[in-house]
Amino acid sequence: MKKPSHLLFLSALICLPQLSYAEKVIAPANDIEYPKHLTNWRVISTSIRNDNNTQRVILGNALAVKAARAETKKIAWPNGAILAKLVWKNETLPTWQAATVPGDFVHAEIMVRDTKKYATTGGWGFARWTGLELTPHGKDSSAAQACFDCHQAAKATDYVFTQPAKLP
Amino acid sequence: MKKPSHLLFLSALICLPQLSYAEKVIAPANDIEYPKHLTNWRVISTSIRNDNNTQRVILGNALAVKAARAETKKIAWPNGAILAKLVWKNETLPTWQAATVPGDFVHAEIMVRDTKKYATTGGWGFARWTGLELTPHGKDSSAAQACFDCHQAAKATDYVFTQPAKLP
Repeated sequence: MKKPSHLLFLSALICLPQLSYAEKVIAPANDIEYPKHLTNWRVISTSIRNDNNTQRVILGNALAVKAARAETKKIAWPNGAILAKLVWKNETLPTWQAATVPGDFVHAEIMVRDTKKYATTGGWGFARWTGLELTPHGKDSSAAQACFDCHQAAKATDYVFTQPAKLP
Repeated sequence: MKKPSHLLFLSALICLPQLSYAEKVIAPANDIEYPKHLTNWRVISTSIRNDNNTQRVILGNALAVKAARAETKKIAWPNGAILAKLVWKNETLPTWQAATVPGDFVHAEIMVRDTKKYATTGGWGFARWTGLELTPHGKDSSAAQACFDCHQAAKATDYVFTQPAKLP
């Protein structure tokens, strides 16, 4: 009987690239990669924007959550920290009309802390992906300037609008 | 020279109980234990209550998140699933007046799925802890009736108000 090892090896070579298609490919925005599995990150805060009828949750990677939950007066965001905002259009909850809940998904936004790499934009890399299909919003790093311009309002808090919510 | 092992053992005995005091002791509410580290759970949704000026994030334990993120029309909450709501009073963000952010922490609430144990309250155990100090709201399981009465409005969705937010 012929040994099947060569055939098995060949099958593996053919099948492996197909397996990789199961994972959604998300293009980078502003030259920044979309962090995989960010919906599994821990919560830092929530917020509502009354000027565009949206609500959001602010999540953080391990470094960001550690900094946000440290009991310090001013947060020291370390290099490598990433803040993520998931934004939804407001909708009325059918079972409780006084409640406003997340409707359509608007976009995911991140801020990546790297004081050297992003020195010209306050030490933060900014990126946005729109819709559930996560279409990159900006083509390259020049698009981050618009984000940074708006974030000037939060200069006193290191260009971060988010105030970590008080947690029990 | 005398062996120091006995002294070391004695020191350990004296120090160990003190170490345990470092962990906050939280009393059960409605005979339900407060789930440790629930602020590390993953996000299911957010919501705003316009009738009492609050915003919240809804988190879930692993079983709840798995059920909430399954692509099914009606969520099948399995026994052992726990939903948690962290609620804050609304506050205006100083750096962006159009944004409403979490102010004072109001309470943490949970719903524990156990169709047998909590058969008389729709298969859910309800509990609430108020303030950052997590003071139990209800003394025993009889207090859960008030929760259940209010949740009648969400009978069509298994007494759960939360609609999992659409996630990318």
